[in-house]
Amino acid sequence: MDQSLEEMKGDEKAVYLTEGEGRLAPAEQLLPLVREAFDASDYGDIHGEIEELHPSDCADLLEFLTRDERGRFVDVFGDDMHHETLTYLEGTVQEEVLERLQPQQLAEAFSELDSDDALDVIEDLEEEDRERILAAILPVDRDVVRESLSYPEESAGRLMAKEFVTVPLEWTVGQAIDYMRASRDLPDDFYDLYVVDKDLSPLGVLPVSRVMRSKRGVALENIMSTDLHIVAPDLNQEDLAYEFRQYNLSSAPVATHEAGMVGVVTLDDIVRVIDEEAEDDLFKMAGLSDEDMYSRALQTARSRFSWLTLNLATAILASSVIAFFEGTIERLVALAVLMPIVASMGGNAGTQTLTVAVRAIAMKDLTSANAMRFIGKELMVAVINGVGFAAMVAVVTLLWFGDPALAMVIAVAMVGNLFMAGLAGALIPLALDRLNIDPANASAVVLTTITDIVGFFAFLGLASWILL
Amino acid sequence: MDQSLEEMKGDEKAVYLTEGEGRLAPAEQLLPLVREAFDASDYGDIHGEIEELHPSDCADLLEFLTRDERGRFVDVFGDDMHHETLTYLEGTVQEEVLERLQPQQLAEAFSELDSDDALDVIEDLEEEDRERILAAILPVDRDVVRESLSYPEESAGRLMAKEFVTVPLEWTVGQAIDYMRASRDLPDDFYDLYVVDKDLSPLGVLPVSRVMRSKRGVALENIMSTDLHIVAPDLNQEDLAYEFRQYNLSSAPVATHEAGMVGVVTLDDIVRVIDEEAEDDLFKMAGLSDEDMYSRALQTARSRFSWLTLNLATAILASSVIAFFEGTIERLVALAVLMPIVASMGGNAGTQTLTVAVRAIAMKDLTSANAMRFIGKELMVAVINGVGFAAMVAVVTLLWFGDPALAMVIAVAMVGNLFMAGLAGALIPLALDRLNIDPANASAVVLTTITDIVGFFAFLGLASWILL
Repeated sequence: MDQSLEEMKGDEKAVYLTEGEGRLAPAEQLLPLVREAFDASDYGDIHGEIEELHPSDCADLLEFLTRDERGRFVDVFGDDMHHETLTYLEGTVQEEVLERLQPQQLAEAFSELDSDDALDVIEDLEEEDRERILAAILPVDRDVVRESLSYPEESAGRLMAKEFVTVPLEWTVGQAIDYMRASRDLPDDFYDLYVVDKDLSPLGVLPVSRVMRSKRGVALENIMSTDLHIVAPDLNQEDLAYEFRQYNLSSAPVATHEAGMVGVVTLDDIVRVIDEEAEDDLFKMAGLSDEDMYSRALQTARSRFSWLTLNLATAILASSVIAFFEGTIERLVALAVLMPIVASMGGNAGTQTLTVAVRAIAMKDLTSANAMRFIGKELMVAVINGVGFAAMVAVVTLLWFGDPALAMVIAVAMVGNLFMAGLAGALIPLALDRLNIDPANASAVVLTTITDIVGFFAFLGLASWILL
Repeated sequence: MDQSLEEMKGDEKAVYLTEGEGRLAPAEQLLPLVREAFDASDYGDIHGEIEELHPSDCADLLEFLTRDERGRFVDVFGDDMHHETLTYLEGTVQEEVLERLQPQQLAEAFSELDSDDALDVIEDLEEEDRERILAAILPVDRDVVRESLSYPEESAGRLMAKEFVTVPLEWTVGQAIDYMRASRDLPDDFYDLYVVDKDLSPLGVLPVSRVMRSKRGVALENIMSTDLHIVAPDLNQEDLAYEFRQYNLSSAPVATHEAGMVGVVTLDDIVRVIDEEAEDDLFKMAGLSDEDMYSRALQTARSRFSWLTLNLATAILASSVIAFFEGTIERLVALAVLMPIVASMGGNAGTQTLTVAVRAIAMKDLTSANAMRFIGKELMVAVINGVGFAAMVAVVTLLWFGDPALAMVIAVAMVGNLFMAGLAGALIPLALDRLNIDPANASAVVLTTITDIVGFFAFLGLASWILL
């Protein structure tokens, strides 16, 4: 065993990170060298560099290359790349690399990957690519991956590692220590022991250090922590991440009533989930659906097209409100000059309320327990700022057009639209959440439709009523 | 020692989380009971419930209450609340609770908190509140907190825990095991041993399980992992989080050249950083600066005012472009009807590009190594979608106003504005990043100013040139 531990140690040297050094990432350092090597068709020195590169940096390097360079890189350095590189690649680039690798390179890479990493690569693939990869890997690995694929997408079952250490409830500290020292089936490194009953259901958890520091005769039952947060394999990853955050968990056992404990989710899995969900919320607010930076322009254009079409439809709707007041604008063209101000301020103020609400709902800080209070506060904010900006825009209008009645009209429209913006910004995400629709999804487009229509209607309507 | 371990174990019972149960969070369950108790002024049963509540749930409960209820809650249940509750509260609520707690309650709470949790509460306070709290706590705790406060805000030094276990390089496995078993100064639970040289600089790391599973005579040097990512205490938390993500770290030693190892940052600290940074990016895009849901309406209105004022100024700027073409609009009022469509589509398409760029820069996926390629691709996407939407809007215009020349004008303006939107959406964040300004900060307002002005100018300018 000591031999395998010596291998585990590796030859890496420690890195010391200090503030404000502005060092270049390894991938950026290597990029010009790789390109030089391509130009000269002389790869001698680079093979070693690629071999020593951390898989995460190697993935970055692949992503920095152009599509053509990437193919060439895989052909030349495919055998030098660390097998974990695959798990760090963005979707589009990952597909390209998987297609370019030779079948035996694929088989080797997957046989060396941990089951959860292998799954992570395979689950995002198209059905036919998936089968091609599964065919290339060992039957043992294949069964493990297939089992994991049977859990729903974005569930605890997909995230969990299948390597963990369990000990029976009846054992003492001494028995646990002897087991850890003697058994050869344990993971390389592990941090916790899970104490299980006869049905393999988890009853408690024990850090290895606690076992080590207790007397041999002590029963595990007496020192284990029973504050377990056990999760079902089909639990959604968002709820799982909430549980980790809320209770500061570092790991959670995954178990079913039938099979007992089947896996462990650890905090590093949750970090990935949190990053994904954060990107999701940010992107959905702008109408982006899981696109990545490396997909082709045509594909990206297509994926953004539907959201922009929706926006076009709502913009035309808003324009038809303006068209309704064509006669008014003809008589007082200053209205056409000023009307975008009212609409734009409503959109911006409403987006602020909307953003706070979407984030608070995602973090479970905004629930039915405080929804009324939130709406009330946002309306108050809207009125305060509405009055402030009404005054400002009235002064500007007066100075610009010298028309007190017009200044009054725009001021009233401004207050009205900011009030509507606050109301819509708070209500839309709450309503969508109640309907079990992710509020980040459609909120923004609905909001700006409302603020545009109300903005134009209030301003032009008041104008045609009062000024003409 | 076994006795203290038995205490550590606690009486908590395991929770089993399954998908789609829609269970009510503990804070939401208790809320009506607390309110009933307030109405009846009978708190008997609730004391026990509050005592058993997880500090994180207790913090949620406090946040769900109104300001008045909150004060009463602290008066009645101040002694029942778990001392860690303070660390889970949002800024505004935290200040309220700190002000309401009695000095001896404060001193007790802080003496029980871990140094990094105490710091977490204290660092966000105003100078005078901070001094009041520091005066109430023990001199020992005070020194630790003051030392941590000497590191820059949002740095590794502020995040790190000061509890960690080091062993000298010369030791064998046996010596390490004996030390872990005998020493009484170690943290309750720990997962890694840091191997240090004479100057206390970290040289390697060892999971406890690896020590336990090696023969007593083996030198630690031969089994330790040397792949350390050592960080300076002043390293910015964003760079720190990047390092954890990029290299899949679970912890990183914090060290200086003078003092050697001074702390450890662990993945749970990084989760908090990631959440903060994600919220920051989302909020900054909407012009929100660290506001929380629980601050008063007036305060919130004020904090949003400056961004909205900036938006007002840019909206007026865009209006002055329209004003320039007043004569044109007077002669063809259909222009006033259609002009918001061009501007709005530019704003939405540009925001998509902007969002992708801001996220990619934050994740260090977009650097000078691939900036040109990114800009090129976004321009291609802009042209593809620009042509598509130009065709759509031309058809709509033709059907609506029956004017082929007007349809052509809006089509050309649409292509031009979407092209500008793509260019600005990609260039603005890249330029801000180059200037060391967080691209999330000012990108959105600059972008929509450009798309509004270009949209109005292109459409109205072309119209007055071609149609009149």
